[in-house]
Amino acid sequence: MLLGRVVGTLVASRKEETLEGLKLLVLRQVDVDDAETGGYVVAADAVGAGVGEVVLYATGSSARQTRLTKDRPCDAVIMAIVDTWEVGGEVRYRK
Amino acid sequence: MLLGRVVGTLVASRKEETLEGLKLLVLRQVDVDDAETGGYVVAADAVGAGVGEVVLYATGSSARQTRLTKDRPCDAVIMAIVDTWEVGGEVRYRK
Amino acid sequence: MLLGRVVGTLVASRKEETLEGLKLLVLRQVDVDDAETGGYVVAADAVGAGVGEVVLYATGSSARQTRLTKDRPCDAVIMAIVDTWEVGGEVRYRK
Amino acid sequence: MLLGRVVGTLVASRKEETLEGLKLLVLRQVDVDDAETGGYVVAADAVGAGVGEVVLYATGSSARQTRLTKDRPCDAVIMAIVDTWEVGGEVRYRK
Amino acid sequence: MLLGRVVGTLVASRKEETLEGLKLLVLRQVDVDDAETGGYVVAADAVGAGVGEVVLYATGSSARQTRLTKDRPCDAVIMAIVDTWEVGGEVRYRK
Repeated sequence: MLLGRVVGTLVASRKEETLEGLKLLVLRQVDVDDAETGGYVVAADAVGAGVGEVVLYATGSSARQTRLTKDRPCDAVIMAIVDTWEVGGEVRYRK
Repeated sequence: MLLGRVVGTLVASRKEETLEGLKLLVLRQVDVDDAETGGYVVAADAVGAGVGEVVLYATGSSARQTRLTKDRPCDAVIMAIVDTWEVGGEVRYRK
Repeated sequence: MLLGRVVGTLVASRKEETLEGLKLLVLRQVDVDDAETGGYVVAADAVGAGVGEVVLYATGSSARQTRLTKDRPCDAVIMAIVDTWEVGGEVRYRK
Repeated sequence: MLLGRVVGTLVASRKEETLEGLKLLVLRQVDVDDAETGGYVVAADAVGAGVGEVVLYATGSSARQTRLTKDRPCDAVIMAIVDTWEVGGEVRYRK
Repeated sequence: MLLGRVVGTLVASRKEETLEGLKLLVLRQVDVDDAETGGYVVAADAVGAGVGEVVLYATGSSARQTRLTKDRPCDAVIMAIVDTWEVGGEVRYRK
């Protein structure tokens, strides 16, 4: 799993019918120092994340292992909102 | 999922029989600022996208979760046409 | 899916038994301008591609969705020989 | 599989319910000379790894092939703690 | 599939029980000119490869399609030992 900061939302009215009801969020990827890496991903939200929060997301077939995304053409899902992490005994991020 | 701009079409008359009837589009990848990143992908079109539109596409096994692409050797599918997205409360793209 | 030019063949006499009979081709990846990108892949050939042809290949589990590659430890398959593609209304490649 | 050094832990109280009970560790990727590559991954721990240890992790659908991660939206799992490896007959790492 | 040269072995006594009996080899990735690319992978050996040999390996779910790796948390498998390949009619590697 990788870390991303929720920075926005995306609207797509014309889409595969199985995608109806999925909330799509725009994430900027962050590294273990909470610095942006330049990458992004658009992910389905399975946990009610909000703009500004740092989340954990899963990609590939694992992104279809939530109740919300099962059997849908979705390859990235937010499955946790991060409270905190530490590296080398030092807190690098706290919500 | 990632964002791409539809820039062209691809024709392949000799192909795996299960691919018959799939429309193949050429996408240039764009980032959250709607700038091209230099990457591309050839994706099956599940939503009737047209040249110039920005779309959302899924890759890997998730690309086979549409009615059109089920059980086919297809690893990228356009499953939504993007209307708009915003980053930091600012619209970055509007169709 | 991505584009590649068939540049050679590969022979491996000692291999997983399920791979028997698969023809393995060496592809150089090309971009939408038909320029080589520096990458390569070794792919199973499901369509009878020849050296010099530009092909479309799928990777991951999608590479096992052809009759030839089903249930085999193969993660890249050529599933179409490209006739032509265009970008911005301009032909970039014609066989 | 790739190698990573366990450098920290991550806490996420709000998450997909199927993730309950999974221990999430932060790994810095290392290469065959045991040098950090700059990459990282957050992985579920299936073997009881501790901070400082070098581990082997699997990604994608393979990350769901442990008892702990089965059917969960988890795309990276630590499935072995490395004792030692050698390259060219020379030990590059020993626990 | 990609090409790699077997450069070493890896020992991990504490691991997911389903991994028991798998031989893990360290590969340096090589390109079509048999030059090392700087990348590496740790792969399960399904064909009895030896140090110094160039092999073909598959990744992702395809890595679980050998008898040895079926249902195991393994995302890279050596499924062929390469005898030779040629590019542009010229032999680039011969065992």
